[in-house]
Amino acid sequence: MSFDTENHPGVCAQPSAASQGFVFNHSMLRVKDPAVALDFYTRIFGMRVLRKLDFPEMKFSLYFLHRPVANNPPPEDIGERTAWTFSQTGILEFTHNWGTESDPDFKYHDGNAQPQGFGHICFSVPDLDAAIQWFDDNQVPYVKRPEQGKMKDVAFIKDPDGYWIEIVDPSRLKNLGR
Amino acid sequence: MSFDTENHPGVCAQPSAASQGFVFNHSMLRVKDPAVALDFYTRIFGMRVLRKLDFPEMKFSLYFLHRPVANNPPPEDIGERTAWTFSQTGILEFTHNWGTESDPDFKYHDGNAQPQGFGHICFSVPDLDAAIQWFDDNQVPYVKRPEQGKMKDVAFIKDPDGYWIEIVDPSRLKNLGR
Repeated sequence: MSFDTENHPGVCAQPSAASQGFVFNHSMLRVKDPAVALDFYTRIFGMRVLRKLDFPEMKFSLYFLHRPVANNPPPEDIGERTAWTFSQTGILEFTHNWGTESDPDFKYHDGNAQPQGFGHICFSVPDLDAAIQWFDDNQVPYVKRPEQGKMKDVAFIKDPDGYWIEIVDPSRLKNLGR
Repeated sequence: MSFDTENHPGVCAQPSAASQGFVFNHSMLRVKDPAVALDFYTRIFGMRVLRKLDFPEMKFSLYFLHRPVANNPPPEDIGERTAWTFSQTGILEFTHNWGTESDPDFKYHDGNAQPQGFGHICFSVPDLDAAIQWFDDNQVPYVKRPEQGKMKDVAFIKDPDGYWIEIVDPSRLKNLGR
């Protein structure tokens, strides 16, 4: 018996053979200013840029970021590295439409104000208290501090574009939703 | 030399010690009807439900899905399984606000119509032609078929809530953006 066979409405009993090898590769967020977004995600969250792809004809650039894993280094060859980037899971993609960074009134929609849809991304951290201290040291704005609201030990911060980032410490959430 | 040290504006030279152990855990999408979303993502994409968490006081449920990996099975103990779910990367979370499924006019915002923000999630597939055949066999709607538009070999389909899913075959993208 496994929990993933729980009879949730809609769940198919067995994964199809046709979906074998499918990988949930990335989530894409548009960012106003890549220099600001890259500073935030590389400095505060320790992400690294795997690839930047430029599309001058369509006036946009893509940035693919990941959290490096020690025993799984990306290839150095640029073409192999692009293919590798698309074969991983847990990738964050930014789209930069050229020019938005110099428009003072430009702002993307966070998905939590109306109209709603996408809600947030989430990072888990090994020590929630240390992470909160780190965010405070860096003046990161909060939607909800971990001690606020009904869901204790879960924080929500905002990235420079206003997208929400949930912060969780897995060891503190064993009893969540029970 | 490594490509992730390329001098993109904003990228910090070295990841901070404070971010050690941070994991990009999940992306959250609100779904109108979990039975419809779970059918789509488990049947078409081979995802499995790791945990469902109910919050009756706030009238919502959360579903955490992943693509199973053979050598990394989730724990059976329910509390350990919750903690494990939050420690992985490549998780997709659905939020179901109770009641939306029975409102015929209810629809979430996909982030690509105005106001824009979040753009899409992406799955990579080992064989693009076979995947397209599989989607066609299942009457999955397209935003863009792989042969359409400027970016050849990249498809975008729509999930039941209208969120865009990019479909890529890594082996065909080695020259993308060069």
